[in-house]
Amino acid sequence: MHQLDSAVQLEHNDGRFSGQTSAAYSNMVGPFGGITAAQLLNALLLHPERQGEPLALTVNFVAPVKDGAFEIAPQLIRTNRSNQHWFVTQTQNDVVVTTATAIFATRRETWPTTDFDVPEFPATVETVPYFPMLPKWMQNYTFEMEGGGSGMFDPKSETSYTLKSIQDAPPRPLDFLSLTAMGDTFFPRIMIRKAEFVPSGTVTLSMHFHVDAATLAAHGDAAVIGQARANRFNRSYFDQTSEVWTPAGELLLTSMQSVYYKV
Amino acid sequence: MHQLDSAVQLEHNDGRFSGQTSAAYSNMVGPFGGITAAQLLNALLLHPERQGEPLALTVNFVAPVKDGAFEIAPQLIRTNRSNQHWFVTQTQNDVVVTTATAIFATRRETWPTTDFDVPEFPATVETVPYFPMLPKWMQNYTFEMEGGGSGMFDPKSETSYTLKSIQDAPPRPLDFLSLTAMGDTFFPRIMIRKAEFVPSGTVTLSMHFHVDAATLAAHGDAAVIGQARANRFNRSYFDQTSEVWTPAGELLLTSMQSVYYKV
Repeated sequence: MHQLDSAVQLEHNDGRFSGQTSAAYSNMVGPFGGITAAQLLNALLLHPERQGEPLALTVNFVAPVKDGAFEIAPQLIRTNRSNQHWFVTQTQNDVVVTTATAIFATRRETWPTTDFDVPEFPATVETVPYFPMLPKWMQNYTFEMEGGGSGMFDPKSETSYTLKSIQDAPPRPLDFLSLTAMGDTFFPRIMIRKAEFVPSGTVTLSMHFHVDAATLAAHGDAAVIGQARANRFNRSYFDQTSEVWTPAGELLLTSMQSVYYKV
Repeated sequence: MHQLDSAVQLEHNDGRFSGQTSAAYSNMVGPFGGITAAQLLNALLLHPERQGEPLALTVNFVAPVKDGAFEIAPQLIRTNRSNQHWFVTQTQNDVVVTTATAIFATRRETWPTTDFDVPEFPATVETVPYFPMLPKWMQNYTFEMEGGGSGMFDPKSETSYTLKSIQDAPPRPLDFLSLTAMGDTFFPRIMIRKAEFVPSGTVTLSMHFHVDAATLAAHGDAAVIGQARANRFNRSYFDQTSEVWTPAGELLLTSMQSVYYKV
């Protein structure tokens, strides 16, 4: 079993889901936020009352998730003709550590267009090397970027922008679970901008999905491409927005975070 | 009393808040989403247990809000040292019509920078005229844009981008309530892109606030500037992202919506 599938594995008992944090996806402190988001999403995907596919997910990081057992309790707010609204809590020893709202939708063919200007992915990329000082979750991914990430912590940089390819390592067919986790693999922008380690943590994360499960499955296990940037760092918080698309230019995910920082 | 203050007025009774939809802020069907968001935010601002100022707000439009009375029930999930997490429901006759999660924060001085490229606001702008076929809430705003909005429904347009100034009419000092409503004054992008009326409605809206109440108050009642665009229209939904800033270039708000459309 791929370590991502192990990490999001849940035991279902009468509408509540039990799981365990994954050592493979640990962060500096506690779990990688992207795996927490994928675990919450999986509880909904496994829920017997779930209808449709993920459209939007907002995850609020309420308190530190400790290593060990957790419980996820999805609450179905309403099922409409073409969408469904959920409120979800993740608890540890009855203390809420994460909340989420999610919308699932049954999508139909409509007039389509993409206005997103797909950035040209650098012709020459190198794999970003893993160093033991980096968080453990990074070992589950292959990231490729210009210069192999050597420019990522450029002290002269006046931008918080990153463009990179993202692939599960080992490769795994793309689905909503892996896409959700991949969407959170962009380092806190304050560290890119300041070119140094800065204590920081996401407090809320919103993701909007642009395609259905069949489109993700058709992509297979190839790398996707993503970019992230911040607009403003001010008084303890910054925003972080990102987009993920296929090498063919199909936009899969747009995302926005609010991140606490201390510097 | 300014009509915005009337619209967000709530009666507090033991942690629950009663209000009425506002005829002045009605949309094609039901209320303008921005006023619903402001009403939910106001319940939190008025809550005796609230600490800090708005940092992030996600509003989920669960079911149509009918004209008339509603109740808002904020649930305090957790108070941390420097932030507070809330889950909020808006009900009508005990049916949930809207949910929200919100984070309030006590912000401190940190290293600041703005990486957002402030677009040059057109030197020559005209007021967007109000026509009776437009939704009623638009009468509460003065919008200025190049060509007075004549280019807004340009059938040859290959973009969903809008740049405009926004001001309460009559002018009202800026605060979190008015900023929240202003952040939702961008027409559904599908109508801009297709240059025609298209049935559409926001299903979820996330806003991140970049400044504190004192900064908003210092701005006074002058116009702010904002932009919006969509990245992808696909299978019943599109995303819509926007930013709002002061004429001096101070970024106030970044926002993301997922919008249902039928065309």
